[in-house]
Amino acid sequence: MDVREYIEAGASGFFAALKDWLAIPSISGDPDRRGDVRRSAEWLQGHLRETGFPVVEIWETGTTDDPGLPAVFAEWPAADPAAPTIVVYGHHDVQPVEPLAEWETAPFEPVERGDQLIGRGSSDDKGQIFFHTLGLRAGMAASGATAPPVTIKMLVEGEEESGSPHFARLLRDRRDRLTCDAIVISDTTMWAADVPSMCTGMRGLTEASVSLYGPSMDLHSGSFGGAVPNPLHAMAGLLAGLHDGRNRVTLKGFYDGVVELTEEERDSFARLPFDEAEWLATAGGSRAAFGEEGFTTLERVWARPTAEINGMWGGHTGPGGKTIVPREAHAKVSFRLVAGQDPRAVQEAFAAYVAENAPPGVKAEVAFPSGDGVRPCFSPIDSPGVLAARRAMERAFGKEVLFTREGGSGPEADLADILEAPLVFVAVGLDEDRIHAPNEKVEKPLLLKGAEVAAYLWDEFAGQGRAEAGS
Amino acid sequence: MDVREYIEAGASGFFAALKDWLAIPSISGDPDRRGDVRRSAEWLQGHLRETGFPVVEIWETGTTDDPGLPAVFAEWPAADPAAPTIVVYGHHDVQPVEPLAEWETAPFEPVERGDQLIGRGSSDDKGQIFFHTLGLRAGMAASGATAPPVTIKMLVEGEEESGSPHFARLLRDRRDRLTCDAIVISDTTMWAADVPSMCTGMRGLTEASVSLYGPSMDLHSGSFGGAVPNPLHAMAGLLAGLHDGRNRVTLKGFYDGVVELTEEERDSFARLPFDEAEWLATAGGSRAAFGEEGFTTLERVWARPTAEINGMWGGHTGPGGKTIVPREAHAKVSFRLVAGQDPRAVQEAFAAYVAENAPPGVKAEVAFPSGDGVRPCFSPIDSPGVLAARRAMERAFGKEVLFTREGGSGPEADLADILEAPLVFVAVGLDEDRIHAPNEKVEKPLLLKGAEVAAYLWDEFAGQGRAEAGS
Repeated sequence: MDVREYIEAGASGFFAALKDWLAIPSISGDPDRRGDVRRSAEWLQGHLRETGFPVVEIWETGTTDDPGLPAVFAEWPAADPAAPTIVVYGHHDVQPVEPLAEWETAPFEPVERGDQLIGRGSSDDKGQIFFHTLGLRAGMAASGATAPPVTIKMLVEGEEESGSPHFARLLRDRRDRLTCDAIVISDTTMWAADVPSMCTGMRGLTEASVSLYGPSMDLHSGSFGGAVPNPLHAMAGLLAGLHDGRNRVTLKGFYDGVVELTEEERDSFARLPFDEAEWLATAGGSRAAFGEEGFTTLERVWARPTAEINGMWGGHTGPGGKTIVPREAHAKVSFRLVAGQDPRAVQEAFAAYVAENAPPGVKAEVAFPSGDGVRPCFSPIDSPGVLAARRAMERAFGKEVLFTREGGSGPEADLADILEAPLVFVAVGLDEDRIHAPNEKVEKPLLLKGAEVAAYLWDEFAGQGRAEAGS
Repeated sequence: MDVREYIEAGASGFFAALKDWLAIPSISGDPDRRGDVRRSAEWLQGHLRETGFPVVEIWETGTTDDPGLPAVFAEWPAADPAAPTIVVYGHHDVQPVEPLAEWETAPFEPVERGDQLIGRGSSDDKGQIFFHTLGLRAGMAASGATAPPVTIKMLVEGEEESGSPHFARLLRDRRDRLTCDAIVISDTTMWAADVPSMCTGMRGLTEASVSLYGPSMDLHSGSFGGAVPNPLHAMAGLLAGLHDGRNRVTLKGFYDGVVELTEEERDSFARLPFDEAEWLATAGGSRAAFGEEGFTTLERVWARPTAEINGMWGGHTGPGGKTIVPREAHAKVSFRLVAGQDPRAVQEAFAAYVAENAPPGVKAEVAFPSGDGVRPCFSPIDSPGVLAARRAMERAFGKEVLFTREGGSGPEADLADILEAPLVFVAVGLDEDRIHAPNEKVEKPLLLKGAEVAAYLWDEFAGQGRAEAGS
């Protein structure tokens, strides 16, 4: 029985089991659902045991004072002790379901409708974790092996939708159990159902706030205007100066070490069927694309760092006029970061920029209320893990796999940094799966494709795939 | 009996009468005090009749639908029909008195304490109008004349502290009664009790609001940041660009026609005893002077036009971070104007600036919610009226009179524009008189000096003063 036959044969049981899991409302952000998150972990524990993992454990997170929600760890060693070890990351918790009235079906009563499976978590992320178990069994059935060609360590956390507050600590505490050669992330999307693609990086994020203080009270602009510094002018100048005429960020050293896009990656981005007018429509009807000179829209959102003013205020903001020199001005700024940038270094450059550029007589205060921020993550498209996964995807989809990235951030960089292994993004979700929104769904044929990818993946990682693919 | 003897002899009666007037709570901003404002006008009418004005009228203002508060008009023709005609402007309404708890004496129970007369209106502006009647009688007593050497037209409005809403219309309606050769304004201040000075101009004002619109909703900066225009960036850039590196306003034509300070006026400003550290302390503890290159602090606030951001807001302004590209940004901007600038032209230049400089994809809206604004007013220091008044002040004070200006705006430009006559500022108030604040006071010796100035003033205007002063 080959991989496809195995998967076809197992499909109905696969979806039946997934629906059981999706019925558990494992909303990590809802304190009343802590029991459900635990039930979800226990359900997964049982399923991984059934799949054949010889080691399956529930890992508690957090501390007595600050208890977290359980993660599930499972390990299936390769027969060959020299085979590589791969961590597979995902999460079994889900987003809240409000506004409930907008759901056409009950979020935790999953329904199959045509090619879609509808329910909270169907795409993000239970469905995408689930294809790994079917795929692993299919691969082993096809080869007749009793163990996978690489050592597989599943790590499925229960707090991702709450910002993974205890995850970095869990990784550090369990580091010896999680040693690996690569980390497969199954929590992203492909470009489109007929355009298979792999994410190869995510932007990081660091946030700052800046306050500028002038006089101790608002001053009458008739008596004082034009002769004392105006903190709003100073703020406008500071923030306007964050970008140069080419829309590049002016902070000293901001681009130092930035991993530039390769020609091959730019070429792959350019070959994605991208309709800029349609994209602008999804961007709240934005009237024009705008950004760093020399880069396309996709390059800008995926692979270029930014400085963004998120909020700004000061002086008289109510109705009518008030002719004052205001006492203070405030702004919130955030920076999206790409591989090679360090959040802390960017914060320091921002603080130095403000200190150097605040005009005389204006007192500046810079703060970093969200700590260091999130590090970017990135896997070069010619790295062995990415190449292996791409081959597996191309075998499953029967067509070329292009590359994408994501503009936002998750806990992925922690995995790479703490486990000191490269990331490989293998996922079959779609941007239109309505994750985090009402009526979340997944395309059933894509989940089965995901299983097929997973079936080929471990051979490819073990270095056996290339020969097999050529056979 | 010379002028000084006459004034000394009349002083106690003068202050007794002034206190009667100050006891009337003519707060124009308080609808419950409309009757008191009328009583104040009637009291002044009686006093002007007693002074000897052959014509004294109460002029109603506003319309049936929008009734105003009464002004008082009085006219005393010169014996010589060829003599010039001078309008004397002031107001008999007063500011509200809140916070009442901070008054050491009842605001409408005027009290003499040492050299001070304490009560609402004592300096702004009843006291300063009042010195004219004593001065006029003193001048006529000294010369033995039965009519003043110039035709005097007193115009004392009752809505100045409420923004003079019906004043321009009154001037237009009564224009034929108000024809004149010059307008004496007695509603400003001198530099200090021992530094007599004359104001020669006031800055005008025009206000604008600007809104910038990007996407129709706040966007996730991970998904869109760096690839669509951010209205807050656009606003920062627009507002930062309002000034160049020398802190000059960049609007096209902004300085066209600006009446520049003469060397003599700059020299006079420079000779005022000005302590910048002390001034900064009064400017809300501002940490440094800051403004247009090439000008001193006094020149900047008195004689240079400005662009001032009064308020600015957009995006996330609450606690915590929110990594968005905000949908819109707003600002309120005002311009202080000097002689030679037209508020409407500045508004048009601002609208053009915004239209030209809003980045692609950002929709800009500019509004002028306060109408055209207030025109600046100005009298050259070598103009005949200023010279005449300066001679009168120097005779009264026995020392050189320096020049000042004021940074803020009142209805004075309307007087000059509608009556088509130059303004001459003759006043003896002090900045420390606490006008508009609790415990308003006036220096009694300065009011008597004001009377003395008024006694010499009409001779000087009639062209007789020079000879007399030299005699």
